[in-house]
Amino acid sequence: MAASAAQRLLASSTKIIGVGRNYIAHAKELGNPVPKEPVLFLKPTSSFLHAGVSSGPIEIPEPLDSLHHEVELAVVISRRGRNVPEASAMDFVGGYALALDMTARDLQSAAKSAGLPWTLAKGQDTFTPISAVTLAKGYDTFTPVSTVIPKSAVTNPDDLELWLKVDDELRQKGPTSDMIFKVPFLISYISAIMTLMEGDVILTGTPEGVGPVRVGQKIKAGITDLIDVEFDVQRRNQSFSG
Amino acid sequence: MAASAAQRLLASSTKIIGVGRNYIAHAKELGNPVPKEPVLFLKPTSSFLHAGVSSGPIEIPEPLDSLHHEVELAVVISRRGRNVPEASAMDFVGGYALALDMTARDLQSAAKSAGLPWTLAKGQDTFTPISAVTLAKGYDTFTPVSTVIPKSAVTNPDDLELWLKVDDELRQKGPTSDMIFKVPFLISYISAIMTLMEGDVILTGTPEGVGPVRVGQKIKAGITDLIDVEFDVQRRNQSFSG
Ligand SMILES: [Mg+2]
Ligand SMILES: [Mg+2]
Ligand SMILES: [Mg+2]
Repeated sequence: MAASAAQRLLASSTKIIGVGRNYIAHAKELGNPVPKEPVLFLKPTSSFLHAGVSSGPIEIPEPLDSLHHEVELAVVISRRGRNVPEASAMDFVGGYALALDMTARDLQSAAKSAGLPWTLAKGQDTFTPISAVTLAKGYDTFTPVSTVIPKSAVTNPDDLELWLKVDDELRQKGPTSDMIFKVPFLISYISAIMTLMEGDVILTGTPEGVGPVRVGQKIKAGITDLIDVEFDVQRRNQSFSG
Repeated sequence: MAASAAQRLLASSTKIIGVGRNYIAHAKELGNPVPKEPVLFLKPTSSFLHAGVSSGPIEIPEPLDSLHHEVELAVVISRRGRNVPEASAMDFVGGYALALDMTARDLQSAAKSAGLPWTLAKGQDTFTPISAVTLAKGYDTFTPVSTVIPKSAVTNPDDLELWLKVDDELRQKGPTSDMIFKVPFLISYISAIMTLMEGDVILTGTPEGVGPVRVGQKIKAGITDLIDVEFDVQRRNQSFSG
C-alpha cells in the first residue's frame, strides 16, 4: 500500500477544524454576514471518506434527499503547536489535500435558527471526502519511505484554483486567493484557542456555487493541475457494523 | 506510570461528543426547551485536561473573567461501532470517568444568538477536565497489565450521583437517573450519525446548578463513592509551545 509520510499524517488526525464563510461571495450567496473573525466549527475524523480506487460513496442519510457540496483546500498540520505566531505558521504545515465539506443545509438552517450546533449538519459519516495529501514545499518527510511521493509540492496555498463538478456540470470554481482569512492567520488564530496536533486538518472554506447533490449523482473535484478526486453519492446503509 | 487498559483507551480518543440539556432541571435553569432528540456538540480531544498530581489548571482565556462548570458522567467507548442497537449498546462501553464540560457561557450565548457553532465556548484547551477511567462491569481488559486497576467497577451508569464544589461550596449534586436520554440510547443514537471509535468519549450532560468559576478558585467534583478530582482555575498562559 502506498503511504507517504504526508499520508500517514492524515491517518493520525484527531480533529478537523472547519472555517465557515471564508470567501466573501459564498457568505453572500447564503445570506450570511462577512465575518470579522473566522467562524470555526468541528467535524469528527470519523467523517473522513478517503478517495481511492476502493472508496465508498458519500452517503445521504434518511430522510434527507440531498446534501450540499463545498469544495475546500484542506491544510494538514505536521506537528503540535499552541499559540503559533503567524510568522512561523507555515512551518506547521505538512501538506494539502482537496476536501469536500459536505453539509446537510436543511439541518444546518434549522440548527442556526434554534441556536444549536451544526453537528448533525456537518459531522456525519462520509461528510468529509478527502484526497491524498500533497506535500507542502519544504516539508521534511520525517520517515523516508520507498513509496509514492507526490510529484508536485505546493509552494503557495494562496495561489491555487479549486473546482467542483456534479455529473460534469461545473458548479464551483474559484481561486484560494479569495480567502478572507489566509492559511498562516488561520493556523495562528486556531492554535490560540485549541492546540493543533500532528495530523489535524483545517478546512479553509468554500468559494461560491454550493448546491445540492442527490442519490445517484457523481462529484468530481480538484485543485487545478494538482489533485483530482471523484465520489459517488448514495443512500446511507443503516445496518450495524462493528 | 500507572496505565490500565481503560486508561489507554482514553489516550486513543479521537472525539468527544457532548450531549446538551440532558437533565430537565438544567435545561430549565438556562431557559432552554427540553429536547425531543439529544442535542449533540463536538469538543476536540485537545481540550482534555487529565486529572492527576501534576495536572495543570483549568485556564480562563482573555478577555473572559469566568467559565461555567458543568459536572458530567463521561462514557468511554471500547470499540468501533456504527448503527449500534440500543440492546447491545452497553457492550461498547469500556469505562466511565468524571468530566467537567467547561463552558464560556457568554461566548455560547452570543453564538446561539448568531446561529453559530459553540466551538469557542466549549472547545478550548483545558475545557474538558477528566478523571482517570473506572472500568465498566464486564469490560475485558484487552491488554492485561500489572498496574493499577480501579477497585470499583460501575454496574449501572443510571445509578450514580454527581457532585461539584467551588471552594468547598456545593454547587451541583444530582443523580444520573435524572438523565432524559440514557446511556444505551445515546450510544445507539450517536452511532447512527457518526461511527464511534475506540476511546471516544460521550459527555452525558449536567444536572442543575451550573455557574461561574473565576481565576484563583478551586473546583472539586466527583461521582459519590467512586471518583474524586480537583482542579485549580487560572488565567491562560498565552505563550507559544510546540
Ligand atoms: Mg465549508
Ligand atoms: Mg474531534
Ligand atoms: Mg455539558
